[in-house]
Order: sequence, then C-alpha cells, then structure tokens
Amino acid sequence: MGLGELFDEPTDTREELMGATYRALCEHGYAELTIQRISDQFPKSKSLLYHHYDSKDELLLDFLSYLLDHFESTMPRADDEAAVALAALLDHVLPTDPDPERRQFIAAIIELRAQAATDPAYRAHFTRSTAFLHDAFVRIIETGVAEGTFRPVDADRVASLLVATIEGAMVQQVTIDTEMASTRSGELRAELDSYIERQLLTVDGEGE
Amino acid sequence: MGLGELFDEPTDTREELMGATYRALCEHGYAELTIQRISDQFPKSKSLLYHHYDSKDELLLDFLSYLLDHFESTMPRADDEAAVALAALLDHVLPTDPDPERRQFIAAIIELRAQAATDPAYRAHFTRSTAFLHDAFVRIIETGVAEGTFRPVDADRVASLLVATIEGAMVQQVTIDTEMASTRSGELRAELDSYIERQLLTVDGEGE
Repeated sequence: MGLGELFDEPTDTREELMGATYRALCEHGYAELTIQRISDQFPKSKSLLYHHYDSKDELLLDFLSYLLDHFESTMPRADDEAAVALAALLDHVLPTDPDPERRQFIAAIIELRAQAATDPAYRAHFTRSTAFLHDAFVRIIETGVAEGTFRPVDADRVASLLVATIEGAMVQQVTIDTEMASTRSGELRAELDSYIERQLLTVDGEGE
Repeated sequence: MGLGELFDEPTDTREELMGATYRALCEHGYAELTIQRISDQFPKSKSLLYHHYDSKDELLLDFLSYLLDHFESTMPRADDEAAVALAALLDHVLPTDPDPERRQFIAAIIELRAQAATDPAYRAHFTRSTAFLHDAFVRIIETGVAEGTFRPVDADRVASLLVATIEGAMVQQVTIDTEMASTRSGELRAELDSYIERQLLTVDGEGE
C-alpha cells in the first residue's frame, strides 16, 4: 500500500487537506512543521485551513484520525482462514525495508507518537490506534481457535505480543542504522512466522 | 533498579552533571529542556557546564552514553544458567507498571528516541544501545544452546523478536492510556514466558 497514492486523486476538500498534511509532514517532519508549511501544499484557500484549525496539532490529530479510518477500511478481511488473515495483517503492518517516502512517513509518525508522552490528545489517539490493532489480532486469533486451526491460546496475550513487536519494529526502522534495521526486521519476521507455526497452528487440527 | 538513586551520591563532577541532566529531563521532558534548566539542577559553577557542552543535544548524547555504560555495568551476569539469565534480563529491561519517576524518565527517552528519526547523532546512539541489548540476548541464548537447556534455535532471530517487543512495550508504557498499557504489558510478559518455555527450553535436555 503506497500511502502517497491515497492522496493522488482527492475527491473533496478534506482529502486535499489531508494530502497537503501528509506531504508537509513527510517533507518537514513534526518539529519543523507549521500550519504555513501545510498550507503551502494546499491548493485551495488558506483561510479555509486557518478557519478550521487553531493549531498544527489540531490538524495533525485530525490527520491521524483520518489515517486510522482509512486503515480500518483497508484492513485485510478476517473472513479468510485465520492463518491466512493473520499473515495478511502482519504483511500489512510490518513492512520490511520501506521505501524512502514510507520511511519519512514512519519517522513522522514516531515523532507524533513521542508527543503522546506529554500530550493527552495524542495519547488518546495512540490508545485508540493500538487498541484497534490489538482487537483486529484478537478477532483473527479467536476465529482460528473456533475453526480449530489454532490451538486454544489466550488471544489477548498473543495479540499483546504481536502489537508490541510491530510497534517496536516500526520504531527501529527509523531510529537505528538502516542496514541493521533491515537485518533485524527480517529476523523478526522469520521468528514471528516460526512462533505462529509452533505456538498457534494446530497440526491437522490435533489441538493442544 | 531506581535510576534516580544512581545519582543520589555523586562522587565526581561528571556524576553531578549527569544527575542534574536526569532530574531536568524527568521534570521538563526533551522539548522543554534547555541548558539553563539543566544548570538550575547543577550545584556547581554554570560556566563549567557551558564550557563543556555547546548545546543541550551534546549534553543529552553524553548523558545517554553514560546511561548505556551504567546499564552495561549493571547487567545481570550471563554466567548463571541461561534460563535464569534470560528471565533476569527481561525483568531488568521490561519493568511492568513503572512508578511515576520511572515513567517520566521513559517518556523522556522516547522523546530522545524520536530525535533519532531526524538526527544522525541520536541515531548512532540508539543503534549502539539496540545492538548492545541484542548482543546480550544472543550471548545468553547461545549459552543455553551450548548447555543443552535451550533448543538449537537461531539466536539472532530470537533476540530480534525480544528486543523489538521490549522497545514496543516501552513506547506503549508512556504513549497509551496507563491502565491499558499495564494490562497489555502483563499479557505480553505472560506470553513471552510461554514463548520461552515452549520455543526455547528443552524438556529434560531432549533437544529438538
């Protein structure tokens, strides 16, 4: 999924504004971002932008919320077999070796996430996005257990391990040496696949 | 380990300065931190501080390096049995329900980590600290494999999973709702223990 493409053909003013925010955030990062720099990327009236948002944080929180809605609507469907759905979701959220645009975007998201350490509005957003991802894994795991393709595991425990791992891997991708991050992320995915095969999957439905 | 205690009885000027940095960072966080605010916590001559450091980032990088050295010197020793050493290291780096001071400190570290997305000097530090933790796990796992208490696993893969999980859990502790973070972190530790028991440990040395 190229997120940039999401904003290539905006169908209304809000999508244009979200696209402008995306481009300005990738280009400048959070610390250097200003409403002015977002409006430089916005083809319509600047006053519209200033009219709707009092601060860059208000706009960024709206942007994060928009992205989460988009993420929810493009999630791999859980009506596949659970093992297939689980692999698809991991592919969706754990991209290895992101391209430069994606890397800049992840870097900006990590900067926004750090704001949550001190800003309750950002914390509320990341609570919601972490809970969303957690619940998506829980649903898939519970489906697998019900199907008999997964062992009768504790779905919350497994989901907590997966989500923490994904969030840690995202942080590593943009905060340590790129080559090392790439090596670690390959090892991590291999180990996650092995964990799923040995801890989660039943062998011919043999159960525990 | 209360990190605050590390700075309670400084034995030289550098330790006093590191303690001042620790207190100012916990109190103000990264974004609001200034050299002036660090010097307010420093009992000695301010000129000493300004003489040695050109910027708050230079001082913070020195502080991070000091902490990593301290972490290295207080690491649980790997000459215990591997399973014991592994549990001790996880206890050391994955504290559940941190007290308020520890939480403030983790929050500041996450802010510093986000700087690594755009600042090569911070990235070099977090590359070093992530590599250090990775290598510590690899050594323990290789010891366990050699002892025959661990299955012949790929130590790098297991370490990559553990380190990403720990880093993700740290981020969660200060960027999502505290109660949810506490629940997730308990589930995560339970699942990690189960992963270690079922993926790593041999049963009476039976091997693979």
